[in-house]
Amino acid sequence: MSGSAFIKEDFLLETDLARHLFHDVAKDLPIIDYHCHLPPDQIRENHKFRSITEIWLDGDHYKWRAMRANGVSERYCTGDATDFEKFEAWAKTVPETIRNPLYHWTHMELKKPFGIEELLNASSARSIYDRTTARLQEEEFTTLGLLKQFKVAVVCTTDDPVDSLEHHAELAKRKDPATRVCPTWRPDKALAIESPAQWNAWVGALEAANGTSIATWSQFMAALERRHSAFHELGCRASDHGLERMSAEPFTDSEIAISFDALRSGRALDALAAEKFKSALLHHLALLDHHRGWVQQFHLGALRNTNARARRTLGPDKGFDSIGDFDQAVPLARFLDRLDDSNQLAKTILYNLNPRDNELFASMIGNFQDGSVPGKMQYGAAWWFLDQKDGMEAQLRALSNLGLFSRFVGMITDSRSFLSYSRHEYYRRLVCNLLGNDVRSGFLPDDRELLTRAVRNVCFENAKAYLGLPLGTLGESKA
Amino acid sequence: MSGSAFIKEDFLLETDLARHLFHDVAKDLPIIDYHCHLPPDQIRENHKFRSITEIWLDGDHYKWRAMRANGVSERYCTGDATDFEKFEAWAKTVPETIRNPLYHWTHMELKKPFGIEELLNASSARSIYDRTTARLQEEEFTTLGLLKQFKVAVVCTTDDPVDSLEHHAELAKRKDPATRVCPTWRPDKALAIESPAQWNAWVGALEAANGTSIATWSQFMAALERRHSAFHELGCRASDHGLERMSAEPFTDSEIAISFDALRSGRALDALAAEKFKSALLHHLALLDHHRGWVQQFHLGALRNTNARARRTLGPDKGFDSIGDFDQAVPLARFLDRLDDSNQLAKTILYNLNPRDNELFASMIGNFQDGSVPGKMQYGAAWWFLDQKDGMEAQLRALSNLGLFSRFVGMITDSRSFLSYSRHEYYRRLVCNLLGNDVRSGFLPDDRELLTRAVRNVCFENAKAYLGLPLGTLGESKA
Amino acid sequence: MSGSAFIKEDFLLETDLARHLFHDVAKDLPIIDYHCHLPPDQIRENHKFRSITEIWLDGDHYKWRAMRANGVSERYCTGDATDFEKFEAWAKTVPETIRNPLYHWTHMELKKPFGIEELLNASSARSIYDRTTARLQEEEFTTLGLLKQFKVAVVCTTDDPVDSLEHHAELAKRKDPATRVCPTWRPDKALAIESPAQWNAWVGALEAANGTSIATWSQFMAALERRHSAFHELGCRASDHGLERMSAEPFTDSEIAISFDALRSGRALDALAAEKFKSALLHHLALLDHHRGWVQQFHLGALRNTNARARRTLGPDKGFDSIGDFDQAVPLARFLDRLDDSNQLAKTILYNLNPRDNELFASMIGNFQDGSVPGKMQYGAAWWFLDQKDGMEAQLRALSNLGLFSRFVGMITDSRSFLSYSRHEYYRRLVCNLLGNDVRSGFLPDDRELLTRAVRNVCFENAKAYLGLPLGTLGESKA
Repeated sequence: MSGSAFIKEDFLLETDLARHLFHDVAKDLPIIDYHCHLPPDQIRENHKFRSITEIWLDGDHYKWRAMRANGVSERYCTGDATDFEKFEAWAKTVPETIRNPLYHWTHMELKKPFGIEELLNASSARSIYDRTTARLQEEEFTTLGLLKQFKVAVVCTTDDPVDSLEHHAELAKRKDPATRVCPTWRPDKALAIESPAQWNAWVGALEAANGTSIATWSQFMAALERRHSAFHELGCRASDHGLERMSAEPFTDSEIAISFDALRSGRALDALAAEKFKSALLHHLALLDHHRGWVQQFHLGALRNTNARARRTLGPDKGFDSIGDFDQAVPLARFLDRLDDSNQLAKTILYNLNPRDNELFASMIGNFQDGSVPGKMQYGAAWWFLDQKDGMEAQLRALSNLGLFSRFVGMITDSRSFLSYSRHEYYRRLVCNLLGNDVRSGFLPDDRELLTRAVRNVCFENAKAYLGLPLGTLGESKA
Repeated sequence: MSGSAFIKEDFLLETDLARHLFHDVAKDLPIIDYHCHLPPDQIRENHKFRSITEIWLDGDHYKWRAMRANGVSERYCTGDATDFEKFEAWAKTVPETIRNPLYHWTHMELKKPFGIEELLNASSARSIYDRTTARLQEEEFTTLGLLKQFKVAVVCTTDDPVDSLEHHAELAKRKDPATRVCPTWRPDKALAIESPAQWNAWVGALEAANGTSIATWSQFMAALERRHSAFHELGCRASDHGLERMSAEPFTDSEIAISFDALRSGRALDALAAEKFKSALLHHLALLDHHRGWVQQFHLGALRNTNARARRTLGPDKGFDSIGDFDQAVPLARFLDRLDDSNQLAKTILYNLNPRDNELFASMIGNFQDGSVPGKMQYGAAWWFLDQKDGMEAQLRALSNLGLFSRFVGMITDSRSFLSYSRHEYYRRLVCNLLGNDVRSGFLPDDRELLTRAVRNVCFENAKAYLGLPLGTLGESKA
Repeated sequence: MSGSAFIKEDFLLETDLARHLFHDVAKDLPIIDYHCHLPPDQIRENHKFRSITEIWLDGDHYKWRAMRANGVSERYCTGDATDFEKFEAWAKTVPETIRNPLYHWTHMELKKPFGIEELLNASSARSIYDRTTARLQEEEFTTLGLLKQFKVAVVCTTDDPVDSLEHHAELAKRKDPATRVCPTWRPDKALAIESPAQWNAWVGALEAANGTSIATWSQFMAALERRHSAFHELGCRASDHGLERMSAEPFTDSEIAISFDALRSGRALDALAAEKFKSALLHHLALLDHHRGWVQQFHLGALRNTNARARRTLGPDKGFDSIGDFDQAVPLARFLDRLDDSNQLAKTILYNLNPRDNELFASMIGNFQDGSVPGKMQYGAAWWFLDQKDGMEAQLRALSNLGLFSRFVGMITDSRSFLSYSRHEYYRRLVCNLLGNDVRSGFLPDDRELLTRAVRNVCFENAKAYLGLPLGTLGESKA
């Protein structure tokens, strides 16, 4: 068969209504990518990619995991094979990924932006490698070119508080850019107290970033506050945290001061003191977010670095993280309650990684909706391992059943790749398809105004209003 | 489009067989509502509602949660806004509830009993408010009128052991009532030992209810036994408990006696002693249920009162409870095993709130089916947050795969509203639709006798036989 | 209706493509049953069954659970009723099992091998009893006859390390058998240290099996190693463990030696010492499996023997086990990591019993795929309570979304019955149906070569290559 038969114009769209909603409402809406891991330096320098391997394989732990599961040795994943060797190894793996989201991402991304409709496999590998790599040398395929092609109005990268933000500062100087680029405050390393040595190295970097010394808990928080302010000045409107589970133990200021001193002296904390320290730090960081009107995001539930050998030989983030089964409800409720109790709970997005907790999360946000703003508390988009059709539909289902789908701020890429904007298209197709099916089954009335508004809102308007981010000129949607 | 196009006669019914089973078998069967939270005083006095707001919004935390999530301030939820202001705030929220069960409940309840087929939204709010409020002044729309319209043969309210049951006593005097009304024994406050002060106040009320003094554990149990007997005399045939998880620690009588004395002296118990006390009390209460041939019900898995500010300013049960993630299997098995071991395990219905535990619960009941009566152990209907299409289908699926669907005692409203009988209709439509789809897909034979019997059983006959409740004249089904 | 209308040729096959894939590719592939509980003595002696009750009801806790739930007393389950009385009790229960997998298994197994197409119920009981029992006297219906009818190329039974393997030794002497029979190493009793008395009795049996005495930890491991070698010689290529959850505490050799001495002296270990002992034993057993190139299997998540009265009066494995809710991720990751860290992680299949953990398991295997062999780490087939349409589809969905479906080693019976090979047919129908539906929905391209290969692989070839078992002549597939 011809590859053109696979990713069709109406891919995933099962009803006339779904096709209408996607093609006439959703498809051309700009993208607000309020959470991703794109490298700001590559955006600033308008990076051009040497090959499809660089843009597609060099940082993609999803593909590495699939290749390893397919019996491909590490040399072709993260090792020293040539670009084409790696690509060919991936091409041979692709037919074995049927029913995995990679099979869809792969062919969607070949189709857009590359215009390639063949199936990728061993026999098409050479031709597709050559054609994609050639196109990547065009201006429309640089980092900024791709963001424009995908109509991305704003990108929020993920940044360490000690980051100089030099790239963001340069990017912020552009007048009327097509795509705005904003940092996101991700202080994971402030919480990484398991290794006092590494933690102190990070505190040292924080001292350097501020030009101050940090000897006490209050100096530590003051330094973080200054960086928080610097992030705000460069357009940051959101924080993010990656945690196994929330920490929300009761603590006293003096306990935390003592623990801080111990850590600064290089001494590890016992389990309870560590939990209290994290609880205090998360609470105080949340106060900063509330103070500046930011959105705080929590990605909960990953069990990271499960494979010591891979960690040792390859480093972190190489595809050896897993879905965890942590108890979430009680600490999460306590954390939010403490902030709400003093009217200092910022707008919040909670993302969960174990789908068994979907309904728990969807019900949790309802406890802290305070009527101040529509959808103040959000149950965030399906993420990482769940970023696939079943996972996205399950998240939408849980949210719909237990909260307000129509107030959802929608999809993010959460990706390291400039090609991953296919995920927004995928999400939009799924949303339109769900609504189309609902109407066909009689679960919703065929009220075009209502449905059109819902689609616009969950694909663009809600995120725009909720995050309050500056948009590039691509965000001036007239759809 | 016209609202009449939404809740159609064949709503949720996708096959001819489903339509046949619903319209010709299920639809007109009487309702046995063996668990709800209707106020017995309003039934006794045949209360007439001043407005749609009183009957629909004044006690409905589902709607409040949706309104808060939609950015509606508390004044329009539980506050001092006028009846129409509150209704209008709800009407404006309704279009934002698409894909939430509220969108279905709302329009089903407007259609039946009010006969209104328009969609509720800002522009229809005034007209619908006026028409519904006018109809509520008719005799068919008093509490007893509504129960009759919905063909409710028996209602089991939820009552505190210290309740005088005066309303039930009056209701019991009626000769051949259309709808029987029975109390349900819900001793949650006997277990609420976290605050010894509040617990002792409750024990004081128990003393008053019995006209005895309670100084020892055995006097405590004797007082409970007398109230249990009083409940039985007024038609009570079931108990109910709302717990995070079962308590089933080993205990000795002397340990419990000592703990009781401590509590009576106003001293809180440590965690282990508290767990033992609850274990003992639950066990002894279960023995009472077995002794009188009652059905015991357990609603497990809610994390309550997560929002301290709301609790402080609004009180409990205002929509700030959540789905918890407690470990269920081991204590549940131990609790049931201890009772079974001495042949004193009553008929039991287990309800779970976190759908991740559906299969766990559905397998657990199988361990204690003893062949004495069909469906002795029941995995109860989807409840609270799960009382929606996906939740109900998931419960039915887990039950079907791991137990006997055909022996299921079926739906309950679990509601505070006299309009919630739409949920029985919804459940019946779903059941008929599932069976219709099963036959269409070839998963079941098209054996009309078999299917008709199954529908009758899971909609009416099983609950009738299992609970053994007295029925009103509406229960004399000839269907 | 006629029973012939129920289990049709195209049962479960909803598309033309599914029908093609099943009838032309999957149906006639031989079966590699790499995990079951068939009794080797009955195979060796080519047992002939006295009645349908013996082969169908005498060991089937699924059917007993359904009967008990239907109000059938124990006499007709495990008691002293006659064969026909038991069968009739089951026949009366069958109509009440609609929507349960038993309804499908029952009618599939009557159709094949018995050729009976009527529905089983009270009125057909006598006739079906007589006809099936008559056929069971034919040569094609002995144990070996049935294995041949079902085209089983190899069966792996489940065996205790202390088992003499005498039946396996006899079976291994057959020249070019149709069906090969291999043992599986299941050392659960080596880990059952809760009762030191029972454990020591088992160690005594291990001494007898080896003709050595076991006084120390190292003698214990040496004895296990010798039995492991003996199993290998008789064709064993896989181990299996049934555990609530993995044990993976850090331990030292001296700690384990001390604990071993305590156990040998009849003293129970405290909780931590017991956990360390199990961790050490599981680790060392895993090293043996790696050393011999075996596949190690772990069945995780069952809560066993919940009903003390049944255990006391009927014995174990009579249908009183349940789905547990144990924390799985952390100990599982630690266990695998420790083995991987020294390059001693054997090929591994992880089976989970609580479907809430499906995605956890499917992601966990990805952390230890090392590129050495396709699908080295496997997320095993849906099992026990999950061995039904929804459970199997959920397992395939989680595996597909998070790993490589195409590398799956596929179905096992995990059964005590020679009639349970219907489960392979059921699985094959479901797989073909899923792929057919995927293509119909546009989720997969209609690439016949790709799909045909996938079906062959997940139904036969993957298991053949992965397990490396000797096959009987029935395994010489030309399909």
